[in-house]
Amino acid sequence: MQLTRAADYAVRVMIHMAGLPPDTRASRNELAEAADCPDQFLSKVLQSLTRAGLVTSHRGNTGGFELPLTARRASLLSIVEAVEGPIRLNVCLVSAAACERQTFCPAHAVWAEAQAAMAGVLRKATIDVLAEQPGATQALTEGPKWN
Amino acid sequence: MQLTRAADYAVRVMIHMAGLPPDTRASRNELAEAADCPDQFLSKVLQSLTRAGLVTSHRGNTGGFELPLTARRASLLSIVEAVEGPIRLNVCLVSAAACERQTFCPAHAVWAEAQAAMAGVLRKATIDVLAEQPGATQALTEGPKWN
Repeated sequence: MQLTRAADYAVRVMIHMAGLPPDTRASRNELAEAADCPDQFLSKVLQSLTRAGLVTSHRGNTGGFELPLTARRASLLSIVEAVEGPIRLNVCLVSAAACERQTFCPAHAVWAEAQAAMAGVLRKATIDVLAEQPGATQALTEGPKWN
Repeated sequence: MQLTRAADYAVRVMIHMAGLPPDTRASRNELAEAADCPDQFLSKVLQSLTRAGLVTSHRGNTGGFELPLTARRASLLSIVEAVEGPIRLNVCLVSAAACERQTFCPAHAVWAEAQAAMAGVLRKATIDVLAEQPGATQALTEGPKWN
């Protein structure tokens, strides 16, 4: 029960982009460095974010990756779900038909409550606010930090 | 980011055992049926629970699995962690040294808060209370329910 590395890197990328002036285009290298993100992850991450409309990609000499206006207040929940799909703490929470024990299983409501509690925290944390925190731009100046 | 099947089955097994009269020994078959737990999981689940002291195992004709008095108020958190190890929503929460970005990464505190929110719900849900809910013993009378 742990966040995927790709989702973690996606959040780092998005917070970095939220800290840039509007209309700035960031290069792949800049994003990789800011997020301490290995190359093999960055493609997947940027693909997921682009597909979800959280990032736009521009080709050519003036190309790069840009945070659309609509994504400046993206929540960590929306970013994680763009990469991992909907958060479902247990299989029984996937759909009403996912587990026939739902109607009587005493644990079902607890899993649902635990998922809601976690998702609630991630939903209220938005990248525009996180990008304003003092350390948000430190990664770029201090180089790779991930062990 | 999803609970393992083994942890889900472990919780089902424990809730079933908490609904039995004290000193009752349940057979493997009874537990497999009550939890709709396939054989390949049950051994792992019972091994983890026994190792954590949440279940005691007795051999012989009158043998079986028993819930020790000390485990009657076990929380879902303790059961999940007995099977999966400590819940760590992100790698950066494993230890102070797990990620050097901890001191400045704006997301770190959010992951910690989300983990605490989820763990808090699982910590306050105890099997003695869940076993008293109306549907808790239904699995045994209605047969396998898991899709």
